[in-house]
Amino acid sequence: MLLVDARLATMETGAAPYGLVEDGAVALDGARIAWCGPLRDLPAEYRDDERVDLGGRLVTPALIDCHTHLVYGGNRAREFEQRLQGASYEEVARAGGGIVSTVSATRAATEADLLADALTRVDALIAEGVATIEVKSGYGLDIETERKMLRIARRIGEERPVRVVTSYLAAHSVPPEYKGRADAYLDEVVIPGLEAAHREGLVDAVDGFCETVAFSAEQIGRVFDKAAALGLPVKLHAEQLSNQGGAALAARHGGLSADHLEYLDAAGVTAMAASGTCAVLLPGAFYTLRETQLPPIELFRSRGVPMAVATDCNPGTSPLASILLAMNMAATLFRLTPEEALAGVTRNAAKALGLTDSGVIRAGMRADLAIWDAGHPAELSYRIGFNALHRRIFAGAL
Amino acid sequence: MLLVDARLATMETGAAPYGLVEDGAVALDGARIAWCGPLRDLPAEYRDDERVDLGGRLVTPALIDCHTHLVYGGNRAREFEQRLQGASYEEVARAGGGIVSTVSATRAATEADLLADALTRVDALIAEGVATIEVKSGYGLDIETERKMLRIARRIGEERPVRVVTSYLAAHSVPPEYKGRADAYLDEVVIPGLEAAHREGLVDAVDGFCETVAFSAEQIGRVFDKAAALGLPVKLHAEQLSNQGGAALAARHGGLSADHLEYLDAAGVTAMAASGTCAVLLPGAFYTLRETQLPPIELFRSRGVPMAVATDCNPGTSPLASILLAMNMAATLFRLTPEEALAGVTRNAAKALGLTDSGVIRAGMRADLAIWDAGHPAELSYRIGFNALHRRIFAGAL
Ligand SMILES: [Zn+2]
Ligand SMILES: [Zn+2]
Repeated sequence: MLLVDARLATMETGAAPYGLVEDGAVALDGARIAWCGPLRDLPAEYRDDERVDLGGRLVTPALIDCHTHLVYGGNRAREFEQRLQGASYEEVARAGGGIVSTVSATRAATEADLLADALTRVDALIAEGVATIEVKSGYGLDIETERKMLRIARRIGEERPVRVVTSYLAAHSVPPEYKGRADAYLDEVVIPGLEAAHREGLVDAVDGFCETVAFSAEQIGRVFDKAAALGLPVKLHAEQLSNQGGAALAARHGGLSADHLEYLDAAGVTAMAASGTCAVLLPGAFYTLRETQLPPIELFRSRGVPMAVATDCNPGTSPLASILLAMNMAATLFRLTPEEALAGVTRNAAKALGLTDSGVIRAGMRADLAIWDAGHPAELSYRIGFNALHRRIFAGAL
Repeated sequence: MLLVDARLATMETGAAPYGLVEDGAVALDGARIAWCGPLRDLPAEYRDDERVDLGGRLVTPALIDCHTHLVYGGNRAREFEQRLQGASYEEVARAGGGIVSTVSATRAATEADLLADALTRVDALIAEGVATIEVKSGYGLDIETERKMLRIARRIGEERPVRVVTSYLAAHSVPPEYKGRADAYLDEVVIPGLEAAHREGLVDAVDGFCETVAFSAEQIGRVFDKAAALGLPVKLHAEQLSNQGGAALAARHGGLSADHLEYLDAAGVTAMAASGTCAVLLPGAFYTLRETQLPPIELFRSRGVPMAVATDCNPGTSPLASILLAMNMAATLFRLTPEEALAGVTRNAAKALGLTDSGVIRAGMRADLAIWDAGHPAELSYRIGFNALHRRIFAGAL
């Protein structure tokens, strides 16, 4: 198949902004890109390929949502309402709200129900041109339910035309039954659960939440040591509410990414730059929590830390199922340029997941593409609550 | 047709929150609601109607977007990008940006192209359960193009299953050719244009922009006097950037609504309460402009001013085409409760448009309904960038 009459935002660096190629063509060979460039340079071998005329439309790499918690039981709409009716966090917690309610609902739900509910969110992302989704565990907080969540994540990739990358996040919160005994929880659940889930092939990376309300850097370090022993890459929820040195810890462990980062300091940025750790920005959580402390965007730029952008789709702090809206929020709230926002859900999102086969339009990469009813790539982050997707190509198939 | 097994959020006041009716039924008689209530109270005459089982789903009044500028030429994505690249407002204006660029593009575009482009936004709203849309002129700023915009607004209602209510907004901005001569613009364009458009049946209400960068309260008063002479209701963009006494002016003229209102004071709220003028809240513009001054929500509540919520869909300050996201922003940014947010796009939005036949589920009202894959109405504003619409009923038709 040969796509013609396309404006390509290849997202290659070192070229035109967005890696733009006018009057471009993309030759697909099965699930891979065989060639791309200006039509006038098309090699002879692709000239007789079946042509699909895109009518001048914009083509980008298919989008990548590199940070989600989209498998969960129940929802927290009532808690959202209680808070807006004036209830304090403590009152909500006493009424059974907060992450504990999601953990209870996720433990109680059947695998089929959790999958069906998660697919509504996956379908919303696919409809916006997403082809790769990261999915975390972390609402089980027991070995059985963490494995259940990761099995569901794998099932998503079988039920829908989307690639799923999993992260094991048992170190998300200390469950009620281990209250005040975080280290025992790590020894008895997180670490043996990781071994079990890894043995079943359910784990692509290991994640944690480093925060005063969750785990210390030292505790997360123990989980990361186990990940290293198993040969698994790591990433971390870090510096979301306070500076705990989480990003520097992730960097010391060669982490793929540190995520959130509102309270990160310059030393943490330097550590990330040295280790090539991506900054995953999650403006949906910033927006929902009405946070005012901005992540150190200018330092990420000046030190060359790659910035990714994701939905953080979760029932509590970011019930966001739109990657396009995450891009708009990254621009509006964090002042990323539209080019940075698009790189954040393509080239840099791939990097944050350790993927080397997607995120740019280039020969040899996966043929995951998004075709837009848009003239210029800046329109993708400019519009709010509007989906300009024309068609999506997943693994070479329209 | 009889809808059964529904949870009805009727939005009637003085009853349960959201006017909730459990195990509800709605009998439709053509384009009207014949009866609604708990199924056990169903009158005998509807018992043999053809039943549609909604499987326990939530039913609300169809949604109403009571403030949009969704007919326009071009877009302002490049300006969005330039600003994020560090350009000042002045630099953007010198590069041909700002409202002037939209006016030029709207004047230059054909009626067919403007309609086709507007329909992409209308379709996005309809897909979220919207059945009534207000559409303003205001990017023509000459008699011919203002009439062209209103004709396109009327065409929308013919091309799509949606009711369109028009507002004449030539008093939106002083066009370049009248720079420094606002009163001449009113005399030569706004007022004769209103007469012409009204004669053609294109005007349902008269709007203006009362602001230092637009028109003074005294100038708007002249337009409102002409509206009164023609028997047309008025509304006003007021107190968005500063307090100009616009809301009080609208109230003095018995205005349907005053819109934006971030800089409104207590006296203005009192005037609105006395005249029954609605407060139309536009959180998409607040968000896009990164405004920090909140409208006086608590005063609206305590003085009984009805609060509506709308997208303000426009290419400059609110390129927002999602009424559900406007609801979430109203809750998250303005702290409306989910019930207030839903009333803002149903009962109070109807009021802001002077409509007495929609916005609540009640016998005699239009059969414009939205059916949701949701258990509780709070879910509609809780989720972000997620559309839970199952089906929409417009004028009695599924
Ligand atoms: Zn997260
Ligand atoms: Zn407006």
